[in-house]
Amino acid sequence: MSVVSNPFLPFQSRPPLDGDYAREELSLAYRNSALPLEALSYDITPVGLHYTLTHFDIPRLDAAGYRLAVSGRVARPLTLDLEEIRALPARSERVTLECAGNGRGFLTPRSASMPWLYEAVGTAEWTGTSLRNVLDRAGLLPDAADIAFFGADRGFDRGVAHDYGRSLKPDAAAGDECLLAWAMNGAPLAPQHGYPLRLVVPGWYGMASVKWLTRIEVLAQSFDGQQQAVGYHYRKDPDDPRVPVTFQKVKSLMVPPGIPDWYTRRRLVERGPMGITGRAWSGAGLAVSRGEVAVDGVWRDAHVEPQRSRNAWQGWRCEWRAEPGEHELACRATDAAGATQPVEPPWNLSGMGNNAIQRVAVTVR
Amino acid sequence: MSVVSNPFLPFQSRPPLDGDYAREELSLAYRNSALPLEALSYDITPVGLHYTLTHFDIPRLDAAGYRLAVSGRVARPLTLDLEEIRALPARSERVTLECAGNGRGFLTPRSASMPWLYEAVGTAEWTGTSLRNVLDRAGLLPDAADIAFFGADRGFDRGVAHDYGRSLKPDAAAGDECLLAWAMNGAPLAPQHGYPLRLVVPGWYGMASVKWLTRIEVLAQSFDGQQQAVGYHYRKDPDDPRVPVTFQKVKSLMVPPGIPDWYTRRRLVERGPMGITGRAWSGAGLAVSRGEVAVDGVWRDAHVEPQRSRNAWQGWRCEWRAEPGEHELACRATDAAGATQPVEPPWNLSGMGNNAIQRVAVTVR
Repeated sequence: MSVVSNPFLPFQSRPPLDGDYAREELSLAYRNSALPLEALSYDITPVGLHYTLTHFDIPRLDAAGYRLAVSGRVARPLTLDLEEIRALPARSERVTLECAGNGRGFLTPRSASMPWLYEAVGTAEWTGTSLRNVLDRAGLLPDAADIAFFGADRGFDRGVAHDYGRSLKPDAAAGDECLLAWAMNGAPLAPQHGYPLRLVVPGWYGMASVKWLTRIEVLAQSFDGQQQAVGYHYRKDPDDPRVPVTFQKVKSLMVPPGIPDWYTRRRLVERGPMGITGRAWSGAGLAVSRGEVAVDGVWRDAHVEPQRSRNAWQGWRCEWRAEPGEHELACRATDAAGATQPVEPPWNLSGMGNNAIQRVAVTVR
Repeated sequence: MSVVSNPFLPFQSRPPLDGDYAREELSLAYRNSALPLEALSYDITPVGLHYTLTHFDIPRLDAAGYRLAVSGRVARPLTLDLEEIRALPARSERVTLECAGNGRGFLTPRSASMPWLYEAVGTAEWTGTSLRNVLDRAGLLPDAADIAFFGADRGFDRGVAHDYGRSLKPDAAAGDECLLAWAMNGAPLAPQHGYPLRLVVPGWYGMASVKWLTRIEVLAQSFDGQQQAVGYHYRKDPDDPRVPVTFQKVKSLMVPPGIPDWYTRRRLVERGPMGITGRAWSGAGLAVSRGEVAVDGVWRDAHVEPQRSRNAWQGWRCEWRAEPGEHELACRATDAAGATQPVEPPWNLSGMGNNAIQRVAVTVR
């Protein structure tokens, strides 16, 4: 069933897919966790309902033996244990994280990867210390051009073995926004969320928030790691000038109303007045300024809660008088910069950043 | 893509599937969680890595408003709140639960349902009170023939709306084994595991362990609910005498060695001596008495840890000197009753109880 004969050879292409889903895709859907859409009702997503995307195996790290190494173009290379990091000034922040590949499974054709539908998102209360507190202690040298973050998770992608790694430019890492987090929703990180320490980069798609963070390397040139230089780009064809994936795009999801059928997940709704609720978010700290709901293609405004945390989703609500028959509900959001969600999925080669509107088919009786 | 036009009509068949996976199957794979196989390394599966299978939506229940009603053929109908239940004698038990549909995704053809591969299993430390403590308080009448347990989760399956419900015969419920559990791994149940109270039926496939338990109804006849009388049976064709799914069958899974390729999950292993480890379990309190590992079809014995808890998996380990080349690893277990795992999946119409051996392809270099 696999189209890749030996993934450990230098480069094996994965032809794009169409129609039903390959066993490899299904297998990735099992390994990773999605937010069941009814769990959008929680302001803070409980552990086990928050999405996860792990490229390789989930490492099993021991807090006592854990070390974070900071090296490269720094004045003072560091090796910190968990207690030293936890002794730094702590703060908590509510952050919505979404996978850059969310919605890939709807694209035609789609790249052979994780075929997310709607559910690769979640909001947690992360507690840690500002990344800046560690970087300042190491002291970036004047020629520092990029900062690479490596996890303890290792594997192959497109024929290259590597520790999962991503980078941030010194400007992006300089503010108070990025966190080195040791707790999620008030408890130590679960193994699948990066125990014992991870990076959290608010406003960016999730690939930037490196889990099981064990090494920070400050570079005098741009990081050329597989997940930075090869993966996570927008492009229409392989020769396109590539645009790196960075901030989350504006998006909105609804709690599917009524009750589901087990297999199809189609919804049955009782006639009469009801509320339709959901969450909306954007990236780069932008608030959602408008939420809309469509019933059978006719859009109306929803009430959107004010932004309470710069990088967390906002709740929204809309009243609906459900009339018997077959209906399609949809929702969309617009952010403070005026960006809104497209009706049709924006296509690109790797299936990144699909923020098309969600559609939910309901039967009202 | 759906073959079911309107799942809310009286009965719509779901034709069997073959080959690649339908979007409905993928969607179920997202909603439910699997144990990533590397997490077999944990004796107790952390929350978020333990498998979940939820037929409908995950209900959001409030502990303060929670009530458990016990009615029907009892001397004293009861309505208990959570504090009253937690005041009953408490105990903890380590239990391995597996979904009855685990392995369905490997069958040809397969029923249109949750296409599990290997990962629908987990072991938790459940804390609660023996079901018997509540049943004794209500007092089963002499004509009590079946005990139905209902969850707060509601939806359609095969055209019938119902609260998820399963039953146990009074004999099966009488011992000290069944638990009404309010904690998992020392913490209140997560929403997806049945908060605030669930039934845990050790030794049985997971469908018996009703989550979000809100109602116990003692019946003078056999329970005819959809998940008892229609779902969860072994049969080769629709006219077969149906055999109900009950106890877990003997099974063994290994931690895939080496490091994976992101997409194919194929493993790369470095040459030389190494340990292969995993877990094995059976049902009905039976211990695993033998574990085996095959390298390229040649079986050898593994060392199996003694059973420490009557209904929890046992660790096993086998040494292997990995030689360069392409290899297939497999593992199997035999239980104290002499039952062992088949090499080929046992086929049945609904894809229940597939306990065929696990196969892992590895490249050694």
